[in-house]
Amino acid sequence: MKLTAVIMAGGKGERFWPKSRLNCPKQFLSLTGDGETMLQKTVRRLEPLVQIEDIYLVTNAEYLTLVREQIPDLPEENILSEPCPRNTAPCIGLAASVIAKKYGDAILFVLPSDHLIHAEEIYLNTLKKAADAAMQDENLITLGITPTYPETGYGYIKYRRGSNQNGVYAVEKFVEKPDLPTAKSYLKAKSYLWNSGMFIWKASSILKNMQKHMPELFAGLAPIAEAWGTVDFEKILNQKFPALPSESIDFGIMEKAENIYTIPGGFGWDDVGSWLALERINSTDENNNMLEGDVISIASRNCTICGNSRTIALLGVSDLIAVDTNDALLICHKNSTQEIKKILAELKAKNRLELL
Amino acid sequence: MKLTAVIMAGGKGERFWPKSRLNCPKQFLSLTGDGETMLQKTVRRLEPLVQIEDIYLVTNAEYLTLVREQIPDLPEENILSEPCPRNTAPCIGLAASVIAKKYGDAILFVLPSDHLIHAEEIYLNTLKKAADAAMQDENLITLGITPTYPETGYGYIKYRRGSNQNGVYAVEKFVEKPDLPTAKSYLKAKSYLWNSGMFIWKASSILKNMQKHMPELFAGLAPIAEAWGTVDFEKILNQKFPALPSESIDFGIMEKAENIYTIPGGFGWDDVGSWLALERINSTDENNNMLEGDVISIASRNCTICGNSRTIALLGVSDLIAVDTNDALLICHKNSTQEIKKILAELKAKNRLELL
Repeated sequence: MKLTAVIMAGGKGERFWPKSRLNCPKQFLSLTGDGETMLQKTVRRLEPLVQIEDIYLVTNAEYLTLVREQIPDLPEENILSEPCPRNTAPCIGLAASVIAKKYGDAILFVLPSDHLIHAEEIYLNTLKKAADAAMQDENLITLGITPTYPETGYGYIKYRRGSNQNGVYAVEKFVEKPDLPTAKSYLKAKSYLWNSGMFIWKASSILKNMQKHMPELFAGLAPIAEAWGTVDFEKILNQKFPALPSESIDFGIMEKAENIYTIPGGFGWDDVGSWLALERINSTDENNNMLEGDVISIASRNCTICGNSRTIALLGVSDLIAVDTNDALLICHKNSTQEIKKILAELKAKNRLELL
Repeated sequence: MKLTAVIMAGGKGERFWPKSRLNCPKQFLSLTGDGETMLQKTVRRLEPLVQIEDIYLVTNAEYLTLVREQIPDLPEENILSEPCPRNTAPCIGLAASVIAKKYGDAILFVLPSDHLIHAEEIYLNTLKKAADAAMQDENLITLGITPTYPETGYGYIKYRRGSNQNGVYAVEKFVEKPDLPTAKSYLKAKSYLWNSGMFIWKASSILKNMQKHMPELFAGLAPIAEAWGTVDFEKILNQKFPALPSESIDFGIMEKAENIYTIPGGFGWDDVGSWLALERINSTDENNNMLEGDVISIASRNCTICGNSRTIALLGVSDLIAVDTNDALLICHKNSTQEIKKILAELKAKNRLELL
């Protein structure tokens, strides 16, 4: 069966302000110092497994230019541009419908566009195993990550102990982002995985589940998929897509469906969820500072600094994040990275839209 | 007797990097948000007491353009440009010699160019009283400031208890910058004042003391003063000045001379000694932040931020100083302001002279 990928690239990347902006969010930025953007990494690492003609990219209409610039080989019709964000269920449903129309049926690797994978060979082998598992029945496969600390920012997957079949585990349930005591209990229970947001299934499997659990969405997708490949597609998409129910695939399907399996992935996953990730990803100096750009650091430690054109001198500071851009500078305590949205709210309130 | 002023404007202002630079140090900057530079304030506040023709300005040769731009009314011959820094004794000696040549004798108000005075009327009345006291005998008058905390960055003046004559006190001794326990004991003793570095004396008084306590300097100044007002002045100054002994007026004269008096000045003095001064001088928000420029502050307190052209967003930080300029950004803990010279040393070591 044909292997295809669905890359979700419509995110706003607000936690990476001020580098990430509405007109160029996180997935279109290089955060690893190698000049390759997160999206380019996502596409490039699939090369040995999925042909570029079989990669579908769902994004917001305003990012079309960025997608074309960064992935010039991607066929134009493979870019599905949402006129407005409607969360992951419509995004995935649209791609699955289009792929079902083109190939009859196919395996879908449904992947975020802004995650980092350290061991790409192991990752590809995991995807292959997931494709094999997804081929059977109407199995829905999700990649899980074994937790190493009680993260409260991720959803969790509880797998059934003793259900291991060649590295594939039956899923008992999906659970939402926990509070800290709950996250600690999950870590202790040793039967929970982080939900990485990467899914593998046949187009037919996810669409059947959509028909059952999200019939309104399923019905709404039909005329859009019907128009795909015709001159009317964009018009129909813009007409019909905004009316689809806004829902996540986790809540809409994964928490209700049967035949869900997970493969714990040992491929070095990082969701690069905030500026804090940069010190994990990039090298640090002897005082645990991650310094990018022209930075002089004196008596300073545990800082993450992303310079731009000017010299930055640090003196006697610690646990700070500073990100410099041409028009905005962020100076943030490491404990406050989850509050960056408050800055964006204030900029909105002040009508400083050019800075969003 | 003629009232003249000698303004010392040759400082490098290193503690105000990155705004203060070798080619435009602190005294040529506006630090009070009103657009008036420290030097302009110093000259302007003397207006009711000293005519502009009687103000002499000693500075480094490379600041001539800045002085002419900022004080356009100052007669060209009143600008004494040192070819190299030689501390305050040669600076004051040169000005006293020139003034003695021009006026026979005169009162000199010897004043730093980078201090702030909050109550200018009281300041002028204090200068008048000091001039009266300096007129008698060969009295050397210094303005003292009653300490409010045990500052270790200033020299101290011990006055003789019971010596008060109409607000003028006899000085028992000058003492160098103390360590903290000593500074605390001075505060407790209640007979010590901060040495403000502002002096009032007759040209004849200081020159006689120079002849006695610094004969080498006195002799070296003679040919320079002789040439003042002639076409040869600049040539002679550049030839002879570098050979003068580099010494402070405090150590060279004030610690040795007799007839020293001090007037405790209640005119709201601030030497604006570091970035920490800005929160004293300028208004702060409800979280004790001094925010200048386009700054958004969320959950941040006790910060001093000098913005430039870009927006600065603060999030969850405290006790920080950030100063933005076109080519350099300082991020410094408030406890580290005295270490800014380490940044300058590192820039020098890296041959980044354009940033000094």
